[in-house]
This record gives sequence, C-alpha cells and structure tokens, in this order.
Amino acid sequence: MASSSSFLLLAALLALVSWQATAFDPIRVNGFVCKNPMEVNADDFFKAANLDKPRLPNKVGSNVTLINVMQIAGLNTLGISIARIDYAPLGQNPPHTHPRATEILTVLEGTLYVGFVTSNQPAPNKNKFFSKVLNKGDVFVFPVGLIHFQFNPNPHQPAVAIATLSSQNPGAITIANAVFGSDPPISDDVLAKAFQVEKNTIDYLQAQFWENNHY
Amino acid sequence: MASSSSFLLLAALLALVSWQATAFDPIRVNGFVCKNPMEVNADDFFKAANLDKPRLPNKVGSNVTLINVMQIAGLNTLGISIARIDYAPLGQNPPHTHPRATEILTVLEGTLYVGFVTSNQPAPNKNKFFSKVLNKGDVFVFPVGLIHFQFNPNPHQPAVAIATLSSQNPGAITIANAVFGSDPPISDDVLAKAFQVEKNTIDYLQAQFWENNHY
Amino acid sequence: MASSSSFLLLAALLALVSWQATAFDPIRVNGFVCKNPMEVNADDFFKAANLDKPRLPNKVGSNVTLINVMQIAGLNTLGISIARIDYAPLGQNPPHTHPRATEILTVLEGTLYVGFVTSNQPAPNKNKFFSKVLNKGDVFVFPVGLIHFQFNPNPHQPAVAIATLSSQNPGAITIANAVFGSDPPISDDVLAKAFQVEKNTIDYLQAQFWENNHY
Amino acid sequence: MASSSSFLLLAALLALVSWQATAFDPIRVNGFVCKNPMEVNADDFFKAANLDKPRLPNKVGSNVTLINVMQIAGLNTLGISIARIDYAPLGQNPPHTHPRATEILTVLEGTLYVGFVTSNQPAPNKNKFFSKVLNKGDVFVFPVGLIHFQFNPNPHQPAVAIATLSSQNPGAITIANAVFGSDPPISDDVLAKAFQVEKNTIDYLQAQFWENNHY
Amino acid sequence: MASSSSFLLLAALLALVSWQATAFDPIRVNGFVCKNPMEVNADDFFKAANLDKPRLPNKVGSNVTLINVMQIAGLNTLGISIARIDYAPLGQNPPHTHPRATEILTVLEGTLYVGFVTSNQPAPNKNKFFSKVLNKGDVFVFPVGLIHFQFNPNPHQPAVAIATLSSQNPGAITIANAVFGSDPPISDDVLAKAFQVEKNTIDYLQAQFWENNHY
Amino acid sequence: MASSSSFLLLAALLALVSWQATAFDPIRVNGFVCKNPMEVNADDFFKAANLDKPRLPNKVGSNVTLINVMQIAGLNTLGISIARIDYAPLGQNPPHTHPRATEILTVLEGTLYVGFVTSNQPAPNKNKFFSKVLNKGDVFVFPVGLIHFQFNPNPHQPAVAIATLSSQNPGAITIANAVFGSDPPISDDVLAKAFQVEKNTIDYLQAQFWENNHY
Repeated sequence: MASSSSFLLLAALLALVSWQATAFDPIRVNGFVCKNPMEVNADDFFKAANLDKPRLPNKVGSNVTLINVMQIAGLNTLGISIARIDYAPLGQNPPHTHPRATEILTVLEGTLYVGFVTSNQPAPNKNKFFSKVLNKGDVFVFPVGLIHFQFNPNPHQPAVAIATLSSQNPGAITIANAVFGSDPPISDDVLAKAFQVEKNTIDYLQAQFWENNHY
Repeated sequence: MASSSSFLLLAALLALVSWQATAFDPIRVNGFVCKNPMEVNADDFFKAANLDKPRLPNKVGSNVTLINVMQIAGLNTLGISIARIDYAPLGQNPPHTHPRATEILTVLEGTLYVGFVTSNQPAPNKNKFFSKVLNKGDVFVFPVGLIHFQFNPNPHQPAVAIATLSSQNPGAITIANAVFGSDPPISDDVLAKAFQVEKNTIDYLQAQFWENNHY
Repeated sequence: MASSSSFLLLAALLALVSWQATAFDPIRVNGFVCKNPMEVNADDFFKAANLDKPRLPNKVGSNVTLINVMQIAGLNTLGISIARIDYAPLGQNPPHTHPRATEILTVLEGTLYVGFVTSNQPAPNKNKFFSKVLNKGDVFVFPVGLIHFQFNPNPHQPAVAIATLSSQNPGAITIANAVFGSDPPISDDVLAKAFQVEKNTIDYLQAQFWENNHY
Repeated sequence: MASSSSFLLLAALLALVSWQATAFDPIRVNGFVCKNPMEVNADDFFKAANLDKPRLPNKVGSNVTLINVMQIAGLNTLGISIARIDYAPLGQNPPHTHPRATEILTVLEGTLYVGFVTSNQPAPNKNKFFSKVLNKGDVFVFPVGLIHFQFNPNPHQPAVAIATLSSQNPGAITIANAVFGSDPPISDDVLAKAFQVEKNTIDYLQAQFWENNHY
Repeated sequence: MASSSSFLLLAALLALVSWQATAFDPIRVNGFVCKNPMEVNADDFFKAANLDKPRLPNKVGSNVTLINVMQIAGLNTLGISIARIDYAPLGQNPPHTHPRATEILTVLEGTLYVGFVTSNQPAPNKNKFFSKVLNKGDVFVFPVGLIHFQFNPNPHQPAVAIATLSSQNPGAITIANAVFGSDPPISDDVLAKAFQVEKNTIDYLQAQFWENNHY
Repeated sequence: MASSSSFLLLAALLALVSWQATAFDPIRVNGFVCKNPMEVNADDFFKAANLDKPRLPNKVGSNVTLINVMQIAGLNTLGISIARIDYAPLGQNPPHTHPRATEILTVLEGTLYVGFVTSNQPAPNKNKFFSKVLNKGDVFVFPVGLIHFQFNPNPHQPAVAIATLSSQNPGAITIANAVFGSDPPISDDVLAKAFQVEKNTIDYLQAQFWENNHY
C-alpha cells in the first residue's frame, strides 16, 4: 500500500497522468514506485547531453546522438525527443524510417540535401520523391513512417543538424541494414526477387558489414 | 460522391466520434454541408468486394486487394481495413511497411513463409529478423511500421491470406520500389553509399520496372 | 531491478514504445518482465489458430473463435484482433456490441443477413436499422459500440465469416445475455418497465439458460 | 483563404485540443470558418441550460437533459458533456449504453438504485451485474460501452442526478428501443431466437410505442 | 489496498482498453494480476462522496471537493472526474489551469461570475478575456489548459457548482500559488522582470501564505 | 468529386497520420483539398526559417521564433513544432505554459537558468519548483501544461536555445500577460484577492504594457 499510495502521490506530484501512462513508467518499472516523491527532482528531466559537441562520423559519414526516454526518464509518455546529427563532408544519414514519429530537421552548420519518398500511389503512379537543399537555419519535415535521408553534398565542410521527433521513443529503421544486415539474414530467394537482382548480388550485400548509425 | 457525402451525414447522425480522425475529414466537410441525412443507408457500410475470388499475381507473384476507406466511406474514422492477398507458387508480397497500421495475417489457403525485421538495436546488435512458416488457419502479427513480407514457398500451389490493418487508411511502402523506383529517382550517389554497391548497380536497379502491388 | 531493466531493454529491443504502453505489457503483467530480451522470438507474434477449421455451433447456431491479445501477447497496444465465425443453417451471431471496437466482416462461405442499429435519434425519430444480405466475398462494417448481428438465412448450408476488430481486446456484450442472463439478475421490476412486458415474462426470460457464444 | 486564416485565429482562440477530432469538425468548420474571429465571445462557451429546473418524466419515468456539442459549439473536440436527469417516483432511466463515453453520476435529490453489466466473460461465467443504492451526494461510475441503468425506488419522491460523460458527443443506445423499436424493425425470426421467446412475443414487443428518453 | 488491487483484476475482467497504461500498471506489475477477479465488486466504482454537503471555504472563499481516480480506482483510464465547489459570499476559485482537462461547470446554487483567458494571440493582439455571469442551472466551458476562475459576486449568499473534468486525474495549477508560493521559491529576479514590479513587491508576495484550495 | 479524390491522393501523398487530426484540418481543407495533388511538392514541407539568425529581444529580453503548422502546412496533424529562442544578457522567456505540448529545450549558446513548477499538491505541500542551470549542449524537459521559464543569468553574453514542442500548434500562455494584460482586463477585485495584494497594485500591473514574446 505504501508503494501504491506513494506512486499515486508521485503521479500527482509530477502531474503527468492523464489518459495515458505516466512520466514514470520506466522509473516505475525500475522500481521507483516506492520512491519517496520528495526525492524526485530536476535531474529526472535533465541530461548533460553535450549536443554542442561534434561526433565522429560512422562509415556512411554521419553520427546521430539521440536524447530519448532512455536518456531522460521524465520524457516518458510525453511524445517528443531530440537528436544532434553530424555529417562528414559527403557524409549521409542513409535512407531510414521512424516507425512511430514525424521528424523536423533544422540545419545548424553547413548544407544538406534531404528528401523523402511517399507511400505507394495508385498504379501506374510511382512513389514520389520530394527533395530539397537546406542551408543553415532552414527547416524540413519528414512525415511519420516515410523513408527519408540527409546527405552533405559539400566535399570539404561538415554539416550539423538538430532533429526533433514526435515520440519519446521514435525508433529508427535503416533500410539497407534492416533488409540486408539483419540477424539472421532474410532469405536471399525472397530478396533477389524483391530487388530484381541475382542471388549472388544479395549474397554480396548480405556479406557486407552493416553498421547502424542510430537506433 | 453520394455515398461518401451520405456517410458524412451519417457521421453526424451517428456521431461517430472516436479518438481519431482521418484524411477524409475534408471530404466529409465538403460532402457534409449540403446532403440530406435521410439518404444514408446500409450501402454506405457495404462493399461487394469479391474477396472470395482469386486475383492474377503481379510480377513478384502476389496481388493485394485492399478494402479501405476509399472503398467503404463508412469506414471513416473507424481505424480498420481488410485485404485479400493472393500468392502465386513461389510468389511474394515483397518487403514493405505500413506507416500507419499494424497487420494481422491469417492463411486461408496454402503455406506462407513470413517475417519482419525489428527496428535498429543498440550497437553492436543488428536488426533482428523474426520469421515463421504459416499453414492454413495460422495467424501472425506485423507490428506498425516494421519491414515485413510474405513468401509462398510452394512451387506448385498458390496461397491466399486475409490481412487486416489497424487503420482505415494504412498506407503501404514497398521498400525496393520506394528506394529504387521513385519518381524522380533518388540520387545514385546517395544510394550507392547507403547500399554499399557501385553506382552502376544502383543505376541498373533504377532502370528496372518497379510495379507496386498495392498502395 | 535486473528484471525491470531487462524490460527496458526488451522495450527498446522491440521498439514498440511510443506515447503509450508497449507490446509487452501483458508479458510484463504476466511476469515476463524478467525474460531475457534475447529470448523474444517470432512465437510472441504467432498463433496456430486453426482458423481454417469449422467449429461446432452453440445453441443459437454460431461459434466465434477470437484471436486477441490473450492468444497473442505481441498484439498488445497494437489495436487489432481477428475472429472466425461459424454459422449453422439458420444460425445467428445474436445482437451484441463491442464496447471498444469497430468490426469489418467478410463472408468466406455461404450467405449472411447482417445489420446494425444506430444510436438514439432526436425524437420523434427512431433508431435506424441498416441491414444487408451478404454473399461470399462481400464486406460489411459495424461501427464501434452499435448493436449488430449476423444471421445465416440458409436452412441447409452453413456459413463462415472472418471478422476483424479495431482493438486487441474489443470485448463483446451479447444483449439478451447481458440483460436477462446476468449474475446476479437485474431486478425484474426494472426490466419489466424497460421492456414493456409483465414481470412474469421477464422472470421467464431470466429462467432461460443463456450461453455466451464469445467474449 | 481569408476564411481559412480566419479559422486559424479562431482555432488558436478557442484553443482546440490538437490530438483529437470529431464527427463534428465539419459542423464546426462550416459554422466558424467564415466567422470573424473577433466576433467570437463567451457565449460560444455558454448555455442557459436551466439545469436547476425539473423536467416532466417520459413514459418510463425519467427525463435526460443533455448539454453536448450541439448545445455548446465551444465543446467541440474537448471530450466532455453534462446532463441533468429527472426521475419520477419509481421512474427509471432504462438499460442503455453510451458507445463513446464513460459516465459519472452524482445524486442531487432522492435515492437511486443503479447498476451496470460487464461484457461477456469466459464460459461458463455469466456477465456480472454490479449494482448499488445511491443516496444524495453519492457518486457512481459507468464504464464506456457497458449496459447500465438508474431506477428511483421511492414510490413517493422524485430523484435528480447530474451525469457527466467523457465525450462532447457520447451518443446513447436505449437497449429495448434499439432492439424492439427500430425503423425498420429487426426480423422477428432473428429476435425470437436471440431472446428465446416465441415470435408473437417479439411481434407484441415490436408493436409497442418506444419512446427514446434521450439521444 | 483491496480497492486498488481489485481494480486491477477488474481491469482484466472488463478488458479495459490496453493500448494505454494506467496509474495502476505498477500495482499490476507488482503482482496484483493474480488476485481473484471474483472479489471485484460495485464498490470499486462507488464513492460516498457527500457531494450534497457544503464545505467550509478556504482563505480565498472557496472549497473544491474533487472525486478523481484517487477516490474511485475504477475511474482509471476512463478520462473523467467530478467536483463540488463551494463559494463563500464574495469567495472565489482563483485563476488556475488544469494541465490535462477541459472543465464544464454548472451552477447549483447562487450566482457566479466566471471567465477564462485565451492563449497568446499574434501581436499586437492581447490575450482575450471571456467572462459571463452564471445563474442557477447555467453551464459554462473552460477549455483545456486555459487560465480560468469563478467568483461569487453576492456579498450575502454562498454559491455551489458542480464541475466535471475530462480526465481521471486533471491536475490543477493555482497561478498565484505556483508562481509566488512554490517550494523553493522562484528567483525574485526572474519574477520581478516577468511581472514588471520591484523585487520587494515579489518578496512581499512570496512571503504570503499560499494555500492551495484543490489539487 | 475531383476535389475529393484529389484530396485522397494528397492524403496518401502526405501520409497523414490517421489516428490523429487537429484544429487545423480546416486549413488543410481550405488550402489543399482543391489543389491538384500533382502540384504538391517539397516546399509544402519546407521553411527557409533562418533559425541560424539572431533576433532582437523584446522588453523582457527574449525572442521566440516558432515554426508551426502556420509556417509549414505539411506539419498538419503530425504533432510537432520547433522554435529558436534568443535571450539577451539577463533576458528571460517569462513564466508561461503550453496548453497542448511538452517542450524539450537544448542550449546552443551561452547559459540558461531554467525551471518549472509542478501542479498543486495535497495540502500542506506546496507546488514544487524544479530548476537547473543549463550549459551549451544540455537538454531539459518541460512537461505539458506546467508553468516554466528560461533566464539568461549572464550580464554580458546572449544565449540561444532550440525548443521543440509535441504539437504542431502548441499554443503559449504567458502568465503575467494573460493575468494582468488581457483584453478586457480581469476584474481587479478578483485579482487582488487571488494575489493577496491591494487593488491599486493590481491596477498598477494592469496599467503596464504587456507584450507577448510569442504565441
């Protein structure tokens, strides 16, 4: 009873309960249900994230530093997260989707060529590809679930962007990695037909090292 | 138009409020203004869909017959749709996502090898691939936004499934088509690096004919 | 502590958290919080449901085989479920509601006479009854919370339908059973006046055996 | 375009909740879009509802005065409504459901015997009936979509209650009226079997005058 | 303890929609799921709240008796709560917001002067103040998150109102108390500039005793 | 019909989330419904916002540049927006709430002292004030509906932050302006008692010029 009433106080204290889970589901899961509400403090809503600091790019030339509910427990249920993305010269954040979030991206440094592809259209229409070159201070929206990417076209200068997502746990699916780099691999029979290539091309692709630049 | 605007009045009539709304609000708006609710009838909730009839497979060996809000205006705001999927021997419903819906699939005829890939995992983990062979009467779930496919492993017999989706307008993104068959094409510089292949491989892929088997 | 942090990994692993509970609430609830995320597999999204197999009808001549979150834990939070319904000749799925779901029904075998009643209308209008005769392959929608039924008018042939619902836990309220077969019974004073019959008619009804054909 | 930007201001002005929309958006749109936002005033959120005044009971001995989005346009999308219910001595608000709302009832005058029935339970369990006698100042909850009623057991004194509902357009389905008083009637073959009575009993019921005491 | 754990089982029993989590997840997670559902009863949905009884006003001349999920466990996830508010002659329910709920207020006794302020408007427009004098039986809506108050202008007679809110845990933020009476206090540098007064005025305000009349 | 089917394509094209809609549907309706979907392009998701450029502070020493659905129509229904906030030395973004959004703030330049106040607590507890000093790259969360502020404690250096909000139309209520600067003014009788000061202090406050720094 202590724990449940404590939780109620905690819930009230943080005033985050409504018709959905509370800001403390994970904390609650981790056993803070019995935590004395008096011990909750500003640090439950804070992260020294160093989002001002550049990160080393991965093999495709980018690095995503995501601050989501796993970094800030207080974000839970609040439906938002934020990331810094670094792009090496000619680097890219490769085609990916966020299964549970729309993204707004704004450029802090450099230039980015960005785009997304719409969902399938009635035949004979193809999926539409919308793209734009963004300069410092420009803003672009990637609607929920659509395949999108960012590419730094500058061969000499890095680029930096802030991306914000409409979920505290947006998830990310890097298309090439999910399709060709899964564990275990997807059957090459299936992929060869789906991608209209020979199985050995699929085998070659599946033999590559697929590094996820964020999750 | 009659049926959709009829629905609108019915919507008012039935006050089908739910915790959602749809891409059809505007149509409802346009239809709603000047229509007599007395004209609403059962046909606004009905479709002679012939879901019992086989369909000819497309080039990857499948055919999706989707009944969504575009076929039944009365589905508007109700958050569900249904499809029949036909699979030729060795045919597949290639890797795709539904940006706005979870799918339950049940096998009516034949056998299907199905699977989905999880979203990116913390390094060094790879995206997990979960798969299963389904026989007649089996049920499988594809969570919202995840890449999934169905393949008919039988070289001699077709297969049939009923798929249901948790949106009246789930959308579909066939991965290969969206990545390699968009209009206009995505830059081959971007794709070559993302997929770790030569640009000419990308150019070859982009030169194929990409047919969407559903939308 | 270990178990709860495992859950967090699990949640992250499956990337199913957004601003709502995760696909694994039931697992967590049922005590799987301590399950090693590495042990999660395709079976968490699968059910050998035998939906291709006929079921014996109950006393009103139907049988509903529902696959919801209780059969597939992975369905939790995903907002969809599916059922096979068998109808004996002249059998029916009696008037009922789903308090939390809209239903799409498609006929696999035979013929069905189906209908639903709208909510109360401004006086002097009565509740509207919308009905339709469905043949194989036809599709019909029953909006959330409305009283609906299916009846097999064929005296010689059974019928089969697939019903899908917009909740992983739609619930069902068979009207006659809830009103006349509850435990304990509703006061016959109340029911006699509500149904405009003598108390002995209510007593007679309450004395019947009320079998729920699904829940 | 002027009208749409006007609506923008209006929308901001009314602070409409953005994570919900309703079947009444079109009405709202058609009612407000062209209105000069400067003309919006307190009356858009007000109703001289006379909820302090007794109403004459209908034939089952009750009268529901509902204040929903049709009485107060400003309620649109806000997810709540309120009603005054008058009960004659031995009067009742007969068994009904609200397809889109939970209800809280509080007694202002007199005594009420209230109850609701749960959804179907796994066989062999019956639907559970929960009931309570409420005195002045007591509060009771009827969960969304469940069949419930209120009855005034006092043969000499009227009763009064305030009911509040978790939707600006909750809807109401009076069970007896929807089942036996619809337009057109439901087939007596279907109802006779569903209610386990002779067809002439159904015919008798369908011949009654069914008055909805609220919608 | 009984009521909260009962709720958990009832939650399972009634199959409350599970795509949301509740204030009781942790309790459920903590093992109450195994409790015998047969122990759930009507009292889990009932509160002898004495809402018919006057309460003594606080220092600003009002008293709010809120019945939310902490008083009735069965309200959990159902999105509604109710309150009785007493107003002394010239008493007020001071300017406050509900971060998670819209409010409908109806006057049971006396007269109330009520109002709310819109969110910020595009410059040079000011926040609009909408007000109304309510008499017995009148109804007024305060949209979610907006600053509102009620004042009893009658120097001799008390007033009484029923307020209902669109959340089972709406929360309340009394503006003056939150701004000037927090623990610890907000920096007087910040407040002096924000409120355009001398720091000593802020210090004076922060030195007052701030009593919350509800939460 | 042309406009409605056009909208359908547009709907698919824009991949509007189907379990959500907003107060801005009418804009979309008025702005897009009649537009030929073939004319939709990347600019519908783009804004040359110059978020890299400093803005001149207002009288309280800050300036908020919000990019919401009014700047990018494609944001409609997608539940997210972004803002750049400039702070002069010793400048502040004064205490305010967002009635429909949680905010994540990250510091791009300088230092910020930030805080929020919880909702009312059970007596005798006061509203808790949580605060933190943020340096470049730090991240802080302000939960939906709670009063919060940011202050630049540096007397010599400006500060810059990026704020993201979980709604495409979050709204903003600057407390001092809404309380003391509304049009028309709130009664000074009400405010004097609520804020425990003399009416002439309220009159003085109401006589100030209240400038909203954002909406």
